[in-house]
Order: sequence, then C-alpha cells, then structure tokens
Amino acid sequence: MKTTRKFLLPDHQVPTAWYNVLADLPTLQPMLHPQTKQPLQPVHLEPIFAKGLIEQEFSKERWIEIPEEVRTLYKIYRPSPLVRASGLEKALDTPARIYFKNESVSPVGSHKLNTALPQAYYNKIEGIQHLTTETGAGQWGSAISIAGKHFGLDVEIFMVRLSYDQKPYRKIVMQTYGGQVHPSPGTTTEAGRRFLAENPDTPGTLGMAISEACERAVTRPNTKYTLGSVLNMVMLHQTVIGLEAERQFEMADDYPDTIIGCFGGGSNFGGISLPFFRHQLAGKATFDFIAAESSGCPKLTKGTFRYDHGDTAGLTPLIPMYTLGADYEPDAIHAGGLRYHGAGAIMSHLLKENIIRAVDVEQRRCFEVGTLFARAEGIIPAPESTHAIAVAIDEALKAKEEGKEKVILFNLSGHGLLDLSAYEAFFNGKL
Amino acid sequence: MKTTRKFLLPDHQVPTAWYNVLADLPTLQPMLHPQTKQPLQPVHLEPIFAKGLIEQEFSKERWIEIPEEVRTLYKIYRPSPLVRASGLEKALDTPARIYFKNESVSPVGSHKLNTALPQAYYNKIEGIQHLTTETGAGQWGSAISIAGKHFGLDVEIFMVRLSYDQKPYRKIVMQTYGGQVHPSPGTTTEAGRRFLAENPDTPGTLGMAISEACERAVTRPNTKYTLGSVLNMVMLHQTVIGLEAERQFEMADDYPDTIIGCFGGGSNFGGISLPFFRHQLAGKATFDFIAAESSGCPKLTKGTFRYDHGDTAGLTPLIPMYTLGADYEPDAIHAGGLRYHGAGAIMSHLLKENIIRAVDVEQRRCFEVGTLFARAEGIIPAPESTHAIAVAIDEALKAKEEGKEKVILFNLSGHGLLDLSAYEAFFNGKL
Repeated sequence: MKTTRKFLLPDHQVPTAWYNVLADLPTLQPMLHPQTKQPLQPVHLEPIFAKGLIEQEFSKERWIEIPEEVRTLYKIYRPSPLVRASGLEKALDTPARIYFKNESVSPVGSHKLNTALPQAYYNKIEGIQHLTTETGAGQWGSAISIAGKHFGLDVEIFMVRLSYDQKPYRKIVMQTYGGQVHPSPGTTTEAGRRFLAENPDTPGTLGMAISEACERAVTRPNTKYTLGSVLNMVMLHQTVIGLEAERQFEMADDYPDTIIGCFGGGSNFGGISLPFFRHQLAGKATFDFIAAESSGCPKLTKGTFRYDHGDTAGLTPLIPMYTLGADYEPDAIHAGGLRYHGAGAIMSHLLKENIIRAVDVEQRRCFEVGTLFARAEGIIPAPESTHAIAVAIDEALKAKEEGKEKVILFNLSGHGLLDLSAYEAFFNGKL
Repeated sequence: MKTTRKFLLPDHQVPTAWYNVLADLPTLQPMLHPQTKQPLQPVHLEPIFAKGLIEQEFSKERWIEIPEEVRTLYKIYRPSPLVRASGLEKALDTPARIYFKNESVSPVGSHKLNTALPQAYYNKIEGIQHLTTETGAGQWGSAISIAGKHFGLDVEIFMVRLSYDQKPYRKIVMQTYGGQVHPSPGTTTEAGRRFLAENPDTPGTLGMAISEACERAVTRPNTKYTLGSVLNMVMLHQTVIGLEAERQFEMADDYPDTIIGCFGGGSNFGGISLPFFRHQLAGKATFDFIAAESSGCPKLTKGTFRYDHGDTAGLTPLIPMYTLGADYEPDAIHAGGLRYHGAGAIMSHLLKENIIRAVDVEQRRCFEVGTLFARAEGIIPAPESTHAIAVAIDEALKAKEEGKEKVILFNLSGHGLLDLSAYEAFFNGKL
C-alpha cells in the first residue's frame, strides 16, 4: 500500500448511482400500518413523504441513478477524502493500518447532507414548498436547512430540547441557512403539548421530535416530512460514502477487513458498509462489520428485535427492528444523534443474521478517544463519531496484542466544532 | 474554462518550496532596533525567535525549500480546494466568474496552520520546548496549539479578552489540542498588569497580547515566541496558497484578473497574491490586488506609512508600515483577526507603491454578505473572510453593471463555525 495520507477523487468521480442493498437481500419483513397492522403500501406514506422517495423506499433495483441536480450539489463537498490515520497509528504504536472516510468536510460538518440533498430535490420536483423534520444534535437539521435553501424550500425543524440547550451554536447554523427551529417537545403541536403535559421537564427524544414533525407535515398544506436516518431510502443515499471509499482503496493499493461506523438509526454505518457488503454477498471478500452505539442508548446490544413505532406518539408505521421501545428515554448523552430508540430495518436484519456485530461505548471513554484523535490527527470529532473511533482503537490495539496486520476503515461521520461545550464538560471532570 | 465546481490537487502536488517575494523586490527599509533605532540585525531577534525562522525573515533567496516533516503535515489538509462559487454567481446574476481558495478545510478552520507548522518545526529542531503567542479571534491560537502538539511542544496563548469572551468555543479548541490559554491583558505578565492598571476594562488588543507573549518568551527558559502574521517569514509560508491556486487555475483552464483577501497583518492576502504578483513583476500578467480591511481598524485606508512598533508595550522592533499607532484601540468588531493596528512591511511597501489597493468594509455589511454566501455556497464564513467576500461581490456587481467578463479570486481564509454568536447578534439586530 501507499504511504500517502489522503486519497482524493476528482469531482467527476462522484458516484452516478446509489447502491440499493434490498436488491441483494431476501425480502425483509414488511413495515406495518400503524392502525390496521397490515403490511404498509407505498400509498400509505404519501401524506408525509414525496412520491419519488417512497418509490426508493420500496425499490428492489440494485442501482438507482443519482439525479444530475443532486450530483451537482454533491460536488460542492464530495468525493470526501479517504484519510490514512498515520498520526493515530503512531500514537497507538499498532501494526494495524487505520483509514477513515472524512465526512466532516461537508459544509454542514457531517454525512447528513448526502441524504438531505436528494430528499429536498424529490420534494421540490413534486411541487412541495415546506419541509419539516426532527433533529438531535443538529447535524441533520443543519443539512436539511441548507438542502432546502438550495432547492428553494422552507424548512421547519423540531430539535430535541436537550440538544437545543446543550448546543446553542447548532441552532444558529440552521438559522444562518434559513431554517426555523423549535425546541422539542414544544407547544406548537398537539403531540408536543401532550408530551409536556406528561412530563414538563422532559429533555425530549428523537421519537418525540419525529411525532411533532410528522404532525406538522400532515396538518400544514403543501408540506412533507423528511427523516435523517432509519429508512431504507436514507441508507440508499448514504451509500455514496462506501462507493467512493472502494475506489479510494484502489488508489491506496490496500483493502479493509474491518469496517466501523457509529450507530444512531444506522445511516452512516450503512453508508460506509453496504457497498463493501455487496462483495461479501458475491463471495469475493469477508469483513468484520462493527456498529458502535452508545451505552446510553444500546438498542443493538440490549434491545430486542420486534415491530415498533419509529416515533413516540405512534404516528409512524411499525418497523421490524431492534428497539428499546418507542417511549424509551435515553441517557442525556452529548451524542444527540445516537439517542434513538430503534435501528433501521435493513441494519436490524443484518444484525439478526449475524452479518454485522455491535459494541456499545460509554461516554467518558468517547471523549477520551476524541481528545486523543484531535491531538493525533488535528480534527476534533463529533461526539457521535468518537464511538467509531473508540472501536477502531480497540481493534487496532487487539491487532497489536496479536501481532497481526489488520486494515481498519471507520467513518468519521462529522466534526465536533459545535459540540465543544461537551469537550469542556469532559475536561472539567463533569461527564 | 471548465464548469467543474472544485479543483483538487493530489497530495504530491503540495508545493515543495515557498516563494520569497523579497528576492524580487528592491531592498525594503530595514526594521529598527526598539532601543537603539539602528537597523535590526538577525542576532537581535534571537531572544524571541528560532534561528531558522530569523534566517527566513532576512532571506533574499527566491525559493525556500519546505522541510519534509512540514510537507508531510501539510498533506493532512493541503492542497486546499479551489472552488468555483457557482451558487454565489447565480445569486448575483453576474457575468463575472468567481473562484475562492477554500482554506477553511484545514482542521483548525483557517489558513493559519500553513505558518504554524513551520514555526513549530524550526523551534523543535533547535531544541525549544515551549512556545508563546498571542491570538485575536483564536484562529492562530488553535493553529499553533495543534502544530505544537504535532512536534511535541507546549504552547501558551494570550488571547485578546474581547475574543476570549465573545468566542468561548475557540478557547476549548485550543485546550482540546493541549494549548494553555490566558485572557489578555491579564495578570501573569508585567505588561499585562500595566495595561490593566491603565484601563481595567480594556477589551484588549493584538498589540497588548503580543507584548505579553514576547515578555513570557524572554523571561521563561527554553521558550520562544511565534507570530501568526505581519512578518516576512509568515508571508513566505502562506505562499503555498497562491502557488496551489496557480496550478488549479491551469486545471480550470481559466485565469484570475482580480485577487482579493481580507487583511489583518497581511498574511492571508499575501499568501494568495504574492505568487501571482511574481508574474506581474515578470511582465506576464497584471492583476487588480485588493486588500479588504475592517472599517473598525482601517490601517491601510486611514493609517499612515511610518516606523511603528508591532506591539503596544514597544518590545518589538520598529517596522516600516502603514499603522494607526501601536496604542490604537480598534472597534470591538467580531473579526478579531483584523483588529491589528499595523500592516506587515512587505504588504505596506506594495500599498505605498500602488501595486495593491485597499478597501474597508463595515461590520453589518460583512454579516449580510456572510449570510448570503452561507446560503449560496453552504459554507458559513469567518467574520474575517466576509470582508473579502464583500469586496468580491462589489467587483462582481461592477462587472455586471459594465457588462464585462471578469475573473475574481478571493481567499476564504476560514469558516465561522466558532463565531456563530456573532451571526446570532447580527440576526437579532444587535450589530
């Protein structure tokens, strides 16, 4: 392999199609209608989603072409670099070679823009004017705000109150991009008022914020809902990450055996792993796929596989997934993007089939490795991404113990420049 | 020209040498010793600077080789992208083609790392253990903190109190990288105590912070001072920006006629303009070079050309420069990096000779164009960089009025993710 530090592809190598793993998997258990409990039909999703996105949600086509308008905007920040973490390797004194896909270079600071752009696009071409959504740490809310702006759509965001208070700068980012932000639960929706009546001091959850955003989408004219993770179509859009990484490993003359991503609803982990997984399906390679979740919200390691709602009020379909229960209130961790009670259907299926495995990481350890990474590589990672870094470090140290070569790839889902109050709390011994 | 959005060079095209404009200029007026007022000799700087850096400060060699250790670290984030600002062009409906060099992709968020790395390196190889410096907005302090960490040096930073209070996240960045940060003026130096005695409520200035950092360097064993702008050697290091841009314009099959940078001490403007200026010297091209300064600290447009100290306490040499006076207290603008009373000797010479020109921009206008740029290009610019954007927009609109083609290049010196409180103040009508 080469000793280059980062591997860059030119603009024109932004992928032209997303990879749809549903083409290569046995048919998954269907989503169920929240009232009838019957298999969900595409038409049932029309009140909240654009038709182009619903079609992708149910599609079994292996490759789905990326619309040129979306690809043009991808080129603002994609292809993202594949980076050899030489500084981290040196700090760990490991024989493992560690690479990361640096999604933090996106203008909004995370991988979320990869799905925000197509979601805004398909709504735009169907004549929608307003988008609603939820956000945890605010990475998704920032992404959909600028994506909406690119396509001339208004965006209204319900931000989990805990993050709204912890991360004031995130709110300003969304506002700078023209987004309108409410703390959730709040008093502008019926669902929000109900959650507040039950527990006026609740820090909020992604499940509650989804309920509020869905309610707004169905009650306001010309408005649709958008979602930053969990759904099949979101995994689909995020496959640009892994597809680029594949070509970049060719440039590096190397190949990963271990692929790691942090895990909230599954989209950044799916985005980096599914394109490699198709080679495993074809019998051409095998990988150790590791999902890194928070011990404060351990749906993969401590949850159960069953049907559950995606939101707390029970407005969304029932999804076959690993879940801690739609009313689960996760710890008040700073990794707001990992505070989701369930895992998307595709990633849940892969876990049930032992194709991927999961590890949960405790918050203090995350900030320890986040600081180590910042000092070794220069980039301050998002609290979510530190979970992947922790597992990558564990694997690199295991390789050292066993005297083995190992090639680790992890997804640096975002930077932590808007989460610095969390680092400060860590330095001051307040975590 | 091509319609590509961004132009990327591979790692191995990181320049191998810096361009030293002093080789191509008539001998400038010398710096003077602060006590004797006699021309400064290299040996006079040895108490505060590493010898390798002093040599560069006085060098007349045209090309100075970049040490391999520095070049390896440059490759973490360089070459930086040259970006066609298609979104901004569209928003302005201008016939001008606008490009920007995106220095905000550096892990510390600005161009400052380009000189922080060599400054740390030359100190390291001379056996120094501790570095001191001043910082305004904190971009420079962040850069020298991680540069010090890469070379195993401690870093102590005197941060202008106004920015220390306005930008709390910047302090946490420096701490995450292992830097030690004091608000300036403060009580840990004699100079700081004197400034406080004179005015206990002073918001501080870069001039005061430089006095504190220099005092610490000469009073603490095995310690040297570092500086983020003004000096010849800093202009030198920053020429990597323009040298890369030259090659990227070849890729774009285009060429700039107007080159713009914001102006604090001159290093980011010098970095992008000096490499192009050498072609003007050789009679091969002519450019409109425009320095964009703050109306709250207008040394170029309202200052006078004379000898003045680089700091407020008069510890530094006398520099032949445009200055507002070393005891000038600039407005409390959010663009902390532009709150410096003087301009470096090279850029002052070029202004005096009418080779460059200067424009000053008012703060509210800066945040207006910063917001416009964020919505058009997705990147939230640093308050400093918005000055360059404002002038680029003026030039693009002039081209539209005159129905002329024009090719504008500006330097996006950094992102504004740690300056969001300033954007919030702007949105709330508090600027």
